[in-house]
Amino acid sequence: MQEVLKYIAENRDTYIEELKDFLRIPSISTLEENKKDIHQCAEFVADKLKSAGLNRVEIFQTEGHPIVYGEWLGAPGKPTVLIYGHYDVQPVDPINLWDNPPFDPIIKDNKIYARGATDDKGQLYVHIKSVEALIKTFGSLPINVKFLIEGEEEIGSDHLEDFINSHLDLLKCDSVLVSDTSMYDEGVPTITYGLRGLAYMEVEITGPNKDLHSGSFGGAVANPINVLAGMIAKLHDKNNRVTIPGFYNDVQKLTKEERENFNKLRFSDKKISKSLNVAELNGEKGFTTLEKLWARPTLDCNGIWGGFIGKGAKTVIPSIATAKISMRLVPNQNPEKIAKQFTKYIKLLAPKSVKVKVSDLHGGWPYITPLNNPATVAAASALQKSFGKKTVFIREGGSIPIVTVFSRKLKAPTVLMGLGLNSENAHSPNEHFNLDHFSTGIKASAYFMEEYVK
Amino acid sequence: MQEVLKYIAENRDTYIEELKDFLRIPSISTLEENKKDIHQCAEFVADKLKSAGLNRVEIFQTEGHPIVYGEWLGAPGKPTVLIYGHYDVQPVDPINLWDNPPFDPIIKDNKIYARGATDDKGQLYVHIKSVEALIKTFGSLPINVKFLIEGEEEIGSDHLEDFINSHLDLLKCDSVLVSDTSMYDEGVPTITYGLRGLAYMEVEITGPNKDLHSGSFGGAVANPINVLAGMIAKLHDKNNRVTIPGFYNDVQKLTKEERENFNKLRFSDKKISKSLNVAELNGEKGFTTLEKLWARPTLDCNGIWGGFIGKGAKTVIPSIATAKISMRLVPNQNPEKIAKQFTKYIKLLAPKSVKVKVSDLHGGWPYITPLNNPATVAAASALQKSFGKKTVFIREGGSIPIVTVFSRKLKAPTVLMGLGLNSENAHSPNEHFNLDHFSTGIKASAYFMEEYVK
Repeated sequence: MQEVLKYIAENRDTYIEELKDFLRIPSISTLEENKKDIHQCAEFVADKLKSAGLNRVEIFQTEGHPIVYGEWLGAPGKPTVLIYGHYDVQPVDPINLWDNPPFDPIIKDNKIYARGATDDKGQLYVHIKSVEALIKTFGSLPINVKFLIEGEEEIGSDHLEDFINSHLDLLKCDSVLVSDTSMYDEGVPTITYGLRGLAYMEVEITGPNKDLHSGSFGGAVANPINVLAGMIAKLHDKNNRVTIPGFYNDVQKLTKEERENFNKLRFSDKKISKSLNVAELNGEKGFTTLEKLWARPTLDCNGIWGGFIGKGAKTVIPSIATAKISMRLVPNQNPEKIAKQFTKYIKLLAPKSVKVKVSDLHGGWPYITPLNNPATVAAASALQKSFGKKTVFIREGGSIPIVTVFSRKLKAPTVLMGLGLNSENAHSPNEHFNLDHFSTGIKASAYFMEEYVK
Repeated sequence: MQEVLKYIAENRDTYIEELKDFLRIPSISTLEENKKDIHQCAEFVADKLKSAGLNRVEIFQTEGHPIVYGEWLGAPGKPTVLIYGHYDVQPVDPINLWDNPPFDPIIKDNKIYARGATDDKGQLYVHIKSVEALIKTFGSLPINVKFLIEGEEEIGSDHLEDFINSHLDLLKCDSVLVSDTSMYDEGVPTITYGLRGLAYMEVEITGPNKDLHSGSFGGAVANPINVLAGMIAKLHDKNNRVTIPGFYNDVQKLTKEERENFNKLRFSDKKISKSLNVAELNGEKGFTTLEKLWARPTLDCNGIWGGFIGKGAKTVIPSIATAKISMRLVPNQNPEKIAKQFTKYIKLLAPKSVKVKVSDLHGGWPYITPLNNPATVAAASALQKSFGKKTVFIREGGSIPIVTVFSRKLKAPTVLMGLGLNSENAHSPNEHFNLDHFSTGIKASAYFMEEYVK
């Protein structure tokens, strides 16, 4: 391994320059106007897989954004790992809060700043470079490797499941390796064994059939904004529990051991509230912050709009008010069932004076990884060797819906070897990625392939 | 009068062409980018006053938008009426709901469609044309006339009060005549004797110091949108009464006679809910719709925004959520006192986990006109003669804050001789003005000057 580690160390600057090129492509998957960039980004990934030494690389078109596939299968009899990642990124608004243009990466304090730096381009690139380093050094890999890199993760991976279903042989593997989660803390090697799911809804309230003058009609007509606010308010009770009937029915209770493990991590509410500049944290009564984030379902408004939102005063009663409302789900909640429960309840909350339209924008299942499978054991060991510290096992509040598809369709466990940090502003202005985690991650990925065949 | 009426009838088409020119100027007072149009519009009004035959016309610059003044004082010993109006208009959003461009006036079914058609360019222009008709016909007016036409009515008339204070002699008058209200129904001559006031606030809720990933933080951090929704929900009780402590303290109760007069107008809830396509009307329990609209204070959200408001799904907990919230006030509520009560209460409603910023965007006093003053009597008679029907006396749910300034500073009662209709989409897409009301209004205005000296 010394040779590989040396090769990785020597090429650090080149890797960073390449990552910058990757980050310069504004591959925002949710916006129509970035469609060309999405295609360019898929080409970029395919080129890099080719130059890493894979012996088959292909871009598959879908009804949505393209999927990039690559493979090196020169180790017959050895296990096969499928490395999954995504080249698409979140939108950049509010753009005015970025210190630097989001698609013009810069390095400050050993961190690279750009949209997609940590989610997921930087983390994904780690594995492309480790494969390259091993192939360039030894001419081969110790295991078989497949890459599956999609462009729709940030919009629900709508076409990936179909692709997997129709390419089960191509994607056959013993385990899936993903770096798209966070480390527990800087420099602390981490494997995430649980993910939350998601049910993301949009609720549109229509009152009068046109915008009205609030002088002429105010006081006699139900105002869609006030109505919507009242409905949203009713979605939580005074203990901050979600009030949707049946919402908690399928929630898997935390074991005593899990609660103890979480407590051992000595999570500091004070530190986090200070870093977010809030007077106190919040949430469901009766649970610690880590329990709330990792093992309890939630409901949050992700967007709301209606009426006059410009500068100044316009005395209008709007015709329409809209909110985006999403729920984070935990094992064993079912996103489809939750979406139905939500739809039924929100309609029930609406007064007769308005019309309600509910759209199910997307959903993802929650997930738990078995801890004793060989890939997880290899990853924990590889992380420990490269970072020089004991690997911790945590859960994660976010969703990677596709992980549950790997489990169901490929019958393969997923190892979440996250290299990001919660403080790296994924989905927010000034997203960045720690370059030490980038370099050490490349080493960890190379170690993983070694450890997997030990 | 026959000669004047004939002159008015003969010039109807010219008047409409001139009104179109007036409506083509996008004099939106709240938007910085329309500043040039505002100035052009003031020039337009001044030119028309000059060509009407006034012997002094002047544009006064203010720290805001210009004020146009005009006078004809050739009737010494006779009363002086000050005709007030505004040449500024509301913004046009949502622009996609207009059937025709808002500043490209067209006539359909004897109605002229454009932003400002009824509020207030069309109504204001009536008086310029009646003065012109009288002067062109007789070479003089039966009374003294002053015009005071401002460009900031839609944004709170911020600089008009100062202007009045510093020009008390210039503006000295016996009464004020305003056409900026609605008729009770098509063809029904109407004088409005009460106006609601306004307190318009903006509430900004800040939670975390940046937008957060709802997966990483959802369930542990107070979400500013959910918090704001909860606060808005608490502003009304289950009977739709406003919950701000002291809010109703100064409300002047309706007399038995007023309630009876309102009932005589046979207002149809069914007709209005059908026209707005709502299943039912709404509002404070225990009052009829006309009572709610004309004599009860209200609270409405005029705008709300926060988080991701684009197409698709973004799983964000926003840092900031904002609402514009305004209250319509009735005699004898005090907008400054109400703004203070609102500010205190809304801050009280906020949990510790967020910061609240409240801005008082503007306020206006409610108003009641004495019914027995000579100008009101003359206006009622003039309307009856021109429209051929008995004049009704109503109140109005909207605000003309400046009317209270005329009362306090000029010691003059204001006669609200409205020529618009509630159905004419003031402040909404497809604003329009009935051209019969326009022509008959010009006659009524000419009659008024005659009647005033009888």
